[in-house]
Amino acid sequence: MLLEAIHHQPKSQYAYAYDEETLHIRVRTKRGDMDKVSVVWGDKYDFQPEKITTTEMTVLAHDKLFDYYQVEIKPPFRRFAYAFKFEKGKKTVFLNEVGFQEDELSQSGVGMLWSPSGMFEFPFLNAVDVNKPPAWVKDAVFYQIFPERFANGDPSLTPEGAEEWHADAVPTRDNFFGGDLQGVIDNLDYLVDLGITCIYFTPFFEAYSNHKYDTIDYLKVDPQFGDNETAKRLVDEAHKRGIKIMLDAVFNHSGYYWPPFQDVLKRGEDSRFTDWFHLRGLPISESPLNYDTFGFVPQMPKLNTENPEVKAYLLEVARYWVEDIGVDGWRLDVANEVDHRFWREFRDTVKTANPEAYILGEIWHNSLAWLQGDQFDAVMNYPVTNSILDFFVKDEIDAESFMGRLEQLLIAYPLQANEATFNLLDSHDTPRLLTLAEGNKKRMKLAALFQLTYLGAPCIYYGDEIGMDGGGDPDCRKPMVWEKDRQDKDMFAFYKKLIQLRKDYRALRDGSFTFLKAEKDAKYVAFEREDDANHFVVVMNSDEKKTKVKLPAEGSFVDMLTGKSYKASRGTLVVEVEGLEAVVLKAE
Amino acid sequence: MLLEAIHHQPKSQYAYAYDEETLHIRVRTKRGDMDKVSVVWGDKYDFQPEKITTTEMTVLAHDKLFDYYQVEIKPPFRRFAYAFKFEKGKKTVFLNEVGFQEDELSQSGVGMLWSPSGMFEFPFLNAVDVNKPPAWVKDAVFYQIFPERFANGDPSLTPEGAEEWHADAVPTRDNFFGGDLQGVIDNLDYLVDLGITCIYFTPFFEAYSNHKYDTIDYLKVDPQFGDNETAKRLVDEAHKRGIKIMLDAVFNHSGYYWPPFQDVLKRGEDSRFTDWFHLRGLPISESPLNYDTFGFVPQMPKLNTENPEVKAYLLEVARYWVEDIGVDGWRLDVANEVDHRFWREFRDTVKTANPEAYILGEIWHNSLAWLQGDQFDAVMNYPVTNSILDFFVKDEIDAESFMGRLEQLLIAYPLQANEATFNLLDSHDTPRLLTLAEGNKKRMKLAALFQLTYLGAPCIYYGDEIGMDGGGDPDCRKPMVWEKDRQDKDMFAFYKKLIQLRKDYRALRDGSFTFLKAEKDAKYVAFEREDDANHFVVVMNSDEKKTKVKLPAEGSFVDMLTGKSYKASRGTLVVEVEGLEAVVLKAE
Repeated sequence: MLLEAIHHQPKSQYAYAYDEETLHIRVRTKRGDMDKVSVVWGDKYDFQPEKITTTEMTVLAHDKLFDYYQVEIKPPFRRFAYAFKFEKGKKTVFLNEVGFQEDELSQSGVGMLWSPSGMFEFPFLNAVDVNKPPAWVKDAVFYQIFPERFANGDPSLTPEGAEEWHADAVPTRDNFFGGDLQGVIDNLDYLVDLGITCIYFTPFFEAYSNHKYDTIDYLKVDPQFGDNETAKRLVDEAHKRGIKIMLDAVFNHSGYYWPPFQDVLKRGEDSRFTDWFHLRGLPISESPLNYDTFGFVPQMPKLNTENPEVKAYLLEVARYWVEDIGVDGWRLDVANEVDHRFWREFRDTVKTANPEAYILGEIWHNSLAWLQGDQFDAVMNYPVTNSILDFFVKDEIDAESFMGRLEQLLIAYPLQANEATFNLLDSHDTPRLLTLAEGNKKRMKLAALFQLTYLGAPCIYYGDEIGMDGGGDPDCRKPMVWEKDRQDKDMFAFYKKLIQLRKDYRALRDGSFTFLKAEKDAKYVAFEREDDANHFVVVMNSDEKKTKVKLPAEGSFVDMLTGKSYKASRGTLVVEVEGLEAVVLKAE
Repeated sequence: MLLEAIHHQPKSQYAYAYDEETLHIRVRTKRGDMDKVSVVWGDKYDFQPEKITTTEMTVLAHDKLFDYYQVEIKPPFRRFAYAFKFEKGKKTVFLNEVGFQEDELSQSGVGMLWSPSGMFEFPFLNAVDVNKPPAWVKDAVFYQIFPERFANGDPSLTPEGAEEWHADAVPTRDNFFGGDLQGVIDNLDYLVDLGITCIYFTPFFEAYSNHKYDTIDYLKVDPQFGDNETAKRLVDEAHKRGIKIMLDAVFNHSGYYWPPFQDVLKRGEDSRFTDWFHLRGLPISESPLNYDTFGFVPQMPKLNTENPEVKAYLLEVARYWVEDIGVDGWRLDVANEVDHRFWREFRDTVKTANPEAYILGEIWHNSLAWLQGDQFDAVMNYPVTNSILDFFVKDEIDAESFMGRLEQLLIAYPLQANEATFNLLDSHDTPRLLTLAEGNKKRMKLAALFQLTYLGAPCIYYGDEIGMDGGGDPDCRKPMVWEKDRQDKDMFAFYKKLIQLRKDYRALRDGSFTFLKAEKDAKYVAFEREDDANHFVVVMNSDEKKTKVKLPAEGSFVDMLTGKSYKASRGTLVVEVEGLEAVVLKAE
C-alpha cells in the first residue's frame, strides 16, 4: 500500500452534505492499490465497538495516478465520526484524524481509533449549509444569445450606421447590426422548436460598445435593444413557452463611461465616488495605469465591492432584475476576482427574490471555494470544455487522458455542483465550435453529442445549431443567419434530435455516468448512463478510421440515432463505429 | 520522485492570503524526496516567459511521511498564476492545474504550462476576505475561571446550602460554594501579579446548575454571581489592569429551563416556539428522545439557529455583552454543530460591535472550514493539548511523533489562525494537569514550559499555578485554594517566571518555530524560536534520566531559568539536561 497516495480532508469535497440527510464521503488511493476500502463509522456521542458500522466504498472515478472512492451515508442523528479501512491481501490499515494505524480493528489494539476524539468527524449536518442548486438546472438546455447579433425585431431602434444584416456580413470590433430584444421575442418559437429551455444573455444593459460589457446603467436595458418593458415582455413570453432567462452580471468592473467613474475622472479628490474603485493615485491616469482594472484594461475600472454604497447598488441591481422583471438566474462575469463576502450577500439577495434562481460563476480554474453552499450554485465548466475539445475536436489527447481530466473534475466538487454545472463548447469569447473543428462537421457533432449526453446543463452558442462558423472575437459574433437556404438543416436536425433524446430520458441528464472504455493511446471512448428506468451505452469514435469495440454487456440495444439493433452475445457486445461517428445505445 | 505524494489545493490552507498584500503558497512532497522545490509565477493577465519569476520554497514542516514547503509572495497586482517546479538530481517535474509535466521549462516544450488557463491561480486578494485575528491575541496569556469556584466576594449572594470554602472541600455534580464576580474583581491584582492578560469565563449567565451551561437567560448574570452591573464593573476594573475578558457562548443548545423550551413543553403544538428547536414529534418526550439535543442529553435541547427569531435573539446576546458591557471576546461552545451561516452573521455582529473582539471556536477536530476569514479567528487547540500531554505527561509517544503531530497542525491551517490559536492543557471538562501527570510536578512543568514557549495563546486553568490537583468532572472543579500555606509557591513562581519571559521576548510569542531535534524513539526535543531581535534554543528532556544533546550552533547562550552560561564550540553546542528538566537558552 502506498500510504503517501492516500488523501482525505474533512469538511471538503471529500466529505460534504449532498442533501439534508445524506453525506458523501470520499477518499483517494493510488490507482489499483486496494482490494477493498471501507468507512468505519458511528455516532460521535455513542461511539462504541458494538455500535460501529463498516460500509464498503466504491470507485467513483480514477485518473492516471489515483482511484477515488465514495460512499453515501445517512447518519440517523445528522452527525458522525469515522475512519477509513484499507485492505490489500492480508494487510489492513486504518486512517483516522491522527494518522495511519496498521492494526486489527479492535478496541484494545488501535489506541485512539475507538475514541471519537481521534476520528474524523462530520460534526452536524445543518440544512441551511447544504448547497442545493435549483432542480430545473439539471433538466435545462441553455442557448447563449449575444443580443446585438441574434435578430433585429424593431428597426426603429437600430443604431445609425448599422451594417446590413445578411449571411455574409462581417463583424468588426466596433460595428453594429441592430439586434434587439424584440428580435428575441419574435424568435422564441424557433428556440422552442430546437428544444431550448433557458436563454443566457450576454449583457443587455445600457453601454457604449456592441458587446455591452462596459456598463453605463445596470438598471436599464440599452436603448438600442429596447427598454425595461421590452425585457419584461421578453421574460413573460419566454416563460409562457417554458423558457427561462439568465442575465450576465458584470460586477467585477464597471464601464469607463459609468457615471461614478466619470465623476472621479472629472472631480478627482472632490468626487464622492473615489472609494467606489481601487485607486492607487489621483488624478486618474491610464498610462501609467494608477487604478485597478479588469486585467490591464483602463476602460474597465475594478469596482470596490467592499464599499457599502457600491454593494447596496449592485445588490439592488441583482434584486431588481429577478424580483421586478422576473429573470431566472445570473451568470457572474469574472466571478473569482470579486470578494467572497460580496457573493454571500448577493446569494442571499437573489435567493430571497427567487429561491429557484440559478447563480452561475464564470471561473476558469478550480472553483471549490465558491461551491460550498454560501456562494454559487455552479460554475461554467471550462475544464470540461477544454477536455472535450482536446479529445474530439483537436485530437490532442488520448482516451485515458480525456477520462482522467473529466474524472478529476467529478471529485473536485460536491456532486450537486457537478450536476448543475454549465457545459459550453464555445462562446462570444472563443472561436466557434465548427471553426475549432476546422470545418469538420463530424468532429463538431462528436463534441456536441458528448456535451448533450454528459452530466450538467449544456449550452449552445447561438447559430452553432445551423452550422455557423467564425474565428475569435469579433468573427465569432456574426449576425445570426436567418436565410433558410444558408442554414445547415442537417446540423439543426442533429441538435434537435439529441436535445429531444436528453429530454426524453432522465438517465442522460442525471443518471450515473461511468466510463466503460478509455484506454491509453486510444481514440475512442465508451461510457454508460443509467437511472432506475433506463440504461444507455454510448460509444464515440474520435479516430478517422472505423473501430470495433467489445464491451461486457447482456441483452439487446437500439441505437437511438439510427434505429439499428445490437445484441450482446456470451456477455459481450460488439459495436462497430465508423470514423468520427458515435452510437447511442439504449438497452431494450 | 513520488508524484502520488505531491499535494496542492488552490484557495485552501495550501494557498491563502496572510495579510492584505501577502500570499502563502504551500505544497506537500514525500519526506526527503526533493532537492529543490520552487513556485513559478506571474500575473495572469501578462503571463509571458520573460515576465515569470521562479521563487524557491523552504520546508515549513514535516511529519513521518511528508515535507511541507512554503513560500511568501506579494504579487504586485494582488493576483497571480502559478505552477510548482520540483527538482531531484537531473530530473525536473512541473505541476500545474492540469497535472504533472516532465519537461524542461520552455514555452514550446510544456504545452499548457505557459498558458495561464492551465496554471493554478489565486484570482484576486480582496482585503475583506483575509482572516485577521486581533493582534492582541498573539501577546495574550489566558486564565480560565469557572465562576462558581474561583472566589466568593459577596457572601450575600451565596446560595443556601452552599458548602464551606476551604482547601479540602469536595465538589460534587450538584453542590455550590458561592463563587461570584465580586470574588474575581477582588482578586484581579492576583492575576496581574501572575501575568495574566485575559480571563476566559465559563458561563456566568442565569442557569440552574453550578456549571451554568444550562442557560435560562443569556442576557442576565446569574443572581448567584451578581448582576449585569457587577459584570460591567468587572470588565472596567479588568481593563484598568490591562486584562481582557472573554465569555462563553453556548448557542448550540439552551438549558431545559429556558423559557421558550418550557413553553414548548407546556403548550406543545400551540407554543409559538416549536420552530426554535429541532423537534421530531410532539408532545416532547425524553425517552424515547424526540428532539435533537447536545449529544443525547435531554436537558440540553439543540437550538434551531436557522430560525430568524432564534438568530435575532442570539445575535442580540452577542452584541449586548460586547458593545454594552465591553467584553473582548467570545468562546463558542460546541461551535462545529451550529450552522456556518449563523457564525458568519455572528462574526459580522461581534466585529461591528468591536473589531478587536476575539472569536474562538470550541472544535476538537480539523477546523479549516471555520478558519477562512468569515467565521472564527481561531479554535481551541485540542490536538496540541493531546500532543503535549502524550509526550511530556503520559510518555506515550516519541519525539518524532510529537513533532509530526504538531507540524501537521502548522500546515492544516493558515498561519494567522495558528498564531491566534488557544492552547490549553486542561479545563473544567478534563482532569487537572497535575493529576494527569500523576502528581509528578516535573512533568507538569515540562508541559507548561512547552505551552508557554510555543506558538499561540496559552491558557492556564485556575489553580494550576498553585499546584491544585483533581480528577475528571466534578473533581477538577474544586474551589480555588486561597490559604497561602496550601498553595505551591514554587509552582506559582515557575508560571510567573515563564509568563514574564514570554512577555519580555516577542520571539517566544510569534517568532519562527523550528524543531532542531525530534528523533525516532527519543524522549527529548530541541527547538528554536527566533525573531529579528532574539534567538532562543529550548531543550526539553521528557526522560527520567539525564540526557546530553548536541546541536549545531555558534556563540554563547544563557539559560533563562537558571542563569547558567553555555558556549558553542567548533559549531556545536553541547547541552546536558537533567531528567524531566529543560533549559531555555537565549543567544547572547
